[in-house]
Amino acid sequence: MKFAVTVTLKKDVLDPQGKVVQDTLANLGMKSLKNIRQGKFFEIEIEERNQLKAEELINEMCKKLLVNLIIEDYKINKL
Amino acid sequence: MKFAVTVTLKKDVLDPQGKVVQDTLANLGMKSLKNIRQGKFFEIEIEERNQLKAEELINEMCKKLLVNLIIEDYKINKL
Repeated sequence: MKFAVTVTLKKDVLDPQGKVVQDTLANLGMKSLKNIRQGKFFEIEIEERNQLKAEELINEMCKKLLVNLIIEDYKINKL
Repeated sequence: MKFAVTVTLKKDVLDPQGKVVQDTLANLGMKSLKNIRQGKFFEIEIEERNQLKAEELINEMCKKLLVNLIIEDYKINKL
């Protein structure tokens, strides 16, 4: 079973990397750009046929390693 | 208008960062983990009401800065 996990910074957390990308795009002439924030993306494949169990495993991975819950949010989607 | 852009390494490109994450998760006892690949995620907000034009702009941003088309693929989703 394959899942996609997107990890984003929480709304009030500064995103310096995204800011640099935003400024660079503005310098490239993208005037209608309003805001850009960067996050992480994981494509995870696990051997587990039960979807509920699989999602629980992915959740555990996120909490143990992939996501810093103090400053980040995450979303899990089945692929 | 808000868009999500996910950038992933092409299938045959090595992903050393993903490999480290995979090994670490395996060491944490995640035995059913089969494969994990890491990518980038962007949340982009632009001032453009025409969806076609907006998507074209996002496409241009990807090609000019966000994505290395030689080794990466990308997907655009409207939020």
